Order: sequence, then structure tokens, then C-alpha cells
Amino acid sequence: MRLLRVGRPGQERPVVRTPEGGCFDLSPLTDDIGPAFLAADGIARTADALAAGDLPATGISGERIGAPVARPGALLCVGQNYAAHAAESGSAPPAEPILFYKGPSTVVGPTDEIRIPRGARRTDWEVELAVVIGRTARYLGPDDDPLDHVAGYALSDDVSERAFQLERSGGQWSKGKSCETFNPLGPWLVTPDEIPDPQNLTLRSWVNGEARQDSTTADMIFPVAELIRHLSQFLTLEPGDIINTGTPEGVALSGRFPYLSEGDTVELEIEGLGRQRSRCVAWNEEVAAAK
Amino acid sequence: MRLLRVGRPGQERPVVRTPEGGCFDLSPLTDDIGPAFLAADGIARTADALAAGDLPATGISGERIGAPVARPGALLCVGQNYAAHAAESGSAPPAEPILFYKGPSTVVGPTDEIRIPRGARRTDWEVELAVVIGRTARYLGPDDDPLDHVAGYALSDDVSERAFQLERSGGQWSKGKSCETFNPLGPWLVTPDEIPDPQNLTLRSWVNGEARQDSTTADMIFPVAELIRHLSQFLTLEPGDIINTGTPEGVALSGRFPYLSEGDTVELEIEGLGRQRSRCVAWNEEVAAAK
Repeated sequence: MRLLRVGRPGQERPVVRTPEGGCFDLSPLTDDIGPAFLAADGIARTADALAAGDLPATGISGERIGAPVARPGALLCVGQNYAAHAAESGSAPPAEPILFYKGPSTVVGPTDEIRIPRGARRTDWEVELAVVIGRTARYLGPDDDPLDHVAGYALSDDVSERAFQLERSGGQWSKGKSCETFNPLGPWLVTPDEIPDPQNLTLRSWVNGEARQDSTTADMIFPVAELIRHLSQFLTLEPGDIINTGTPEGVALSGRFPYLSEGDTVELEIEGLGRQRSRCVAWNEEVAAAK
Repeated sequence: MRLLRVGRPGQERPVVRTPEGGCFDLSPLTDDIGPAFLAADGIARTADALAAGDLPATGISGERIGAPVARPGALLCVGQNYAAHAAESGSAPPAEPILFYKGPSTVVGPTDEIRIPRGARRTDWEVELAVVIGRTARYLGPDDDPLDHVAGYALSDDVSERAFQLERSGGQWSKGKSCETFNPLGPWLVTPDEIPDPQNLTLRSWVNGEARQDSTTADMIFPVAELIRHLSQFLTLEPGDIINTGTPEGVALSGRFPYLSEGDTVELEIEGLGRQRSRCVAWNEEVAAAK
């Protein structure tokens, strides 16, 4: 199944799409797709309601698609989880997963604008596999399957302003990761039955139609299951938390490509998780007021 | 006014306490004190309802006090914001505020247990002034008063496991800051009318009755107003976000005191914001199951 949210920003309604392409209204089950719905076994209840024919068919043609999760409880990020990206960033591959957070209000839809913040000089794209947590994970042991705690997967752009990230916060990265609109997410939350192996997905990005990143999740240093198990030794993952699992090589930080400017279009794709297309605009008061 | 939440974990009810000490039931106005209530002008509506005599008196004697905000939208932290603490941590004072995040589910009440995580070796206390955001702050300019965006202040313990923070995450601090129970908050959310000058408050901590930190918010490198203005240039602060504004010298990381162990009691106090008393327990499955 693919869960999505369609409609104007702040007024999205929940929809489920079957593998066959049928769209069904999820609002008989929930007002929205977020931490509360996922904690209340929302994915299993969606599957049951679909199977029972309890959800009315709906059309979504022409409607904006929002982020598939209204707002994550927490937005965790794993740094330098692909060896070639660590190298292009000037770092050795990490011995253990590197954790940082983004502000959770950065999440926007997959075709919404990316607003380049005031004072930005080095705004960069990062295609990433996002993991949406569906069940609390705490001190997972060797007999636990970390993937049992996954509600689904989504396509994520961990947009970064490198000057803010690397030069303005004493080495802590979050200041360059948390600008408004800096996490396009979606179009879908895809359930694990459609993604049986999260470590075998191609992921790619383009800027103005020119290829940038082109890699596979097989190249992750710490695969999804290991990330969830590892993080659960340090903190409690909760339903509705989202983990950005790191980006492969091919970002502007490498020095091989220009950073993003007003008017650029960023496109991302992960096999089975759909495609994003985001136009970059300069921050201005009119854009902000119209939000 | 002082807003608080009383009752068993997960079942707290909202209460407001007047400067004269009277306690009034806030539930006619809201189910809970959190981002939604603060965004809906909850503080002003509380003041109006109190003035109009619309809130019934209530007793809270003997009841547990929870964190005064149910769950922050985001939990921001400012690192090394007191020069003497930066020095005891082996760092020069920062040129700009250092931002990192904690997981927002770390927040617990002011007398709840601090659970020392499995594998911990260097668990440390940090008394901090927490600022609760009441109104969206985005690109505040020289004519804006950042303190207009403050819903209130609270006492906060930014508990840290130094080995996880400094040795296990490639230099990014959040892994040692986000363990469960690592942010005792409260007892109260105190509105700005009771704290006219947030830069003139003594803040102190004790372990097992022995003094540890003893400082004043006058020693902050970046005062509250400057922090809010600065952060608003990089991200959007939203109602219900909480900023831990940094800790003064006198933590175990200095080498002058032992780290926390099972059975230790941590006490914190900030002038006008009340007192915390947290017992440290070792993580075990029974404690977790009883939560």
C-alpha cells in the first residue's frame, strides 16, 4: 500500500493507493496520517479496511500531494552513511552511525518549493531513503527484527545549507539542516510489503535535468535494520518518528557541481518510492505570507 | 501565572497557579498544555479566564507534577553558552550560538526518575533555563522584540551521557542527549510577567545534597533575546518549541566531580522557576514496563 495526503497545505486529506493503482479515501479511519495514527496500529487497520471494502474510492487527479506524514514526532538523520559521500565530504567512513536531528517543521510536500534562506551561500540537495517508524523500538536485541518496527519508507530530500551547517554552529550540523522547507518528503509512505528489501533500491537526483546522484541503498555502510537496532540502544524510537538514512555521493559539497540557486529545479527518485520535483525560490516576505 | 500539569504520567490535567498561590483547573480551557494550546493563544486566554473567574479552584496536594508542556514540538539546545562551562569542557567561547537538538520524547516531570542508560559510563547533569515559545518567530529584525515570542520559562535538566555524546557519533552531540528520561522539565511554565528579566536569575544544582553548579543567567554569552533572534534567522521557531539555553560551570565533565550513579539524587533550582529532585536509577526492564 501507498499512503498519501492530498490537498492544500494544512488541509490535506488521507488517501491510500493499492498496488493496482486504485485510490481510496482514508478519512473514515483517520483525520490525518501522523504519529497518533501510526501508534494506533494505523497501517494494519488500513489494510484490514481495504480488504473489507470499507473505504470509498476517491479521485486525486490534479490535486497537490503533501508530505505523507503530517509532521514527524522527531526527524532523525544519519550522517555519512555512504562511503563515497563521506569521502567527498572530506571524512573517513564512520565507525558507528552519526546521529543528528533536523527541526520537524522542515517537512513539506514532494512538489512544494524549496526556499533558499536569507544569507545562504551553499544550499545543497541530498536524496535519502526515509524510514517511518510504526512501533516503539527500545533496546532491540539480537532476536528482535528491527524491520518489524517500520511502518514504511519514503523518498526524502535532506536539504542542507552548508555554510550554516559547517561554519556557523561550532561543528554541530543542525543549524544548516533545519531551515523552513528543507525536507521535501514523499509522495508516498510505502508499506514494507511493497519494499521487501530496503537495501536494494536505486536512488538518484538531478538538478535542472542534469544527473547528480546515482547510487543504490546496497552501498549504505549501516543498513536500515542495523540503524534501527543501533539507535534503539541510545534512544527510544516512537511511531511517527522518521529517520533519514544518509545520502550517496554526488552533492554540491563535493566541489563537482554548483550549489542551488533561485530558479533551479531539483528532482529525486528512489525505486518504488516515487519522484519529487522541487523548484528553488529565494526567501521573500510574499512567499512567506502566502504559505 | 504558573502553568503546570498534575497527575500520573500520560494522564496529567492542566492547572494554573496564581502568584498568590491559588490553584485553578485549566481543563475548561484545554485538555492539555502543548503546542496546540500555546499556538491558540493559550496563555492570554488563561489570563482572561482567570481574571473573569471562569476557572474552578482545584487542589493538587500530594499529586505528582508532570512536565509543564506535554511534549515540545521540537527541543532545541544551545551549547556552551556560559564561558566558564565552555572552558571546563575544553573549548573556547563560541563566536555564535551552537545549536543541536534533543529527541522531544526525553521530557519527563521534575521528580521523575532519571534512568541511566545501558552502557553508560559518564552520565552528567546540566541545570538550564528553558524558554517555551508562544508565538512563531521567523527572521526577527532589529525592531522586533524577541521576548514577545516567549510563552514562559521553565527549569530544565539537559541530562547528558558524555561517552555517547562525545565518542559515539562522529562529534555530533545528540546521541548522548536523547536517552529516555534525559530532560526533566518543570515544575512550572512561568509566564514572563513573573520573570521580567530572564538575565538575572540564579541557577544551581546539587548531587546528593552537595553543591555543584551555582551561577546566574547574567553570565550567558548569548542572552535569551539574542538566542531567539539569532535562531530565527536559520529556522522557524513555533509555539510549543522549547530552547534549553545552556548550562553554567560545575558539571562532572569538568573532572571536578564524579558522574552520576544509580541511587544518586540530582536537585536543581532556578530563582522563580522552582526546584527539581530526580533520583537516578539503572535502566531495567521492570522500570521500563511500569512506565
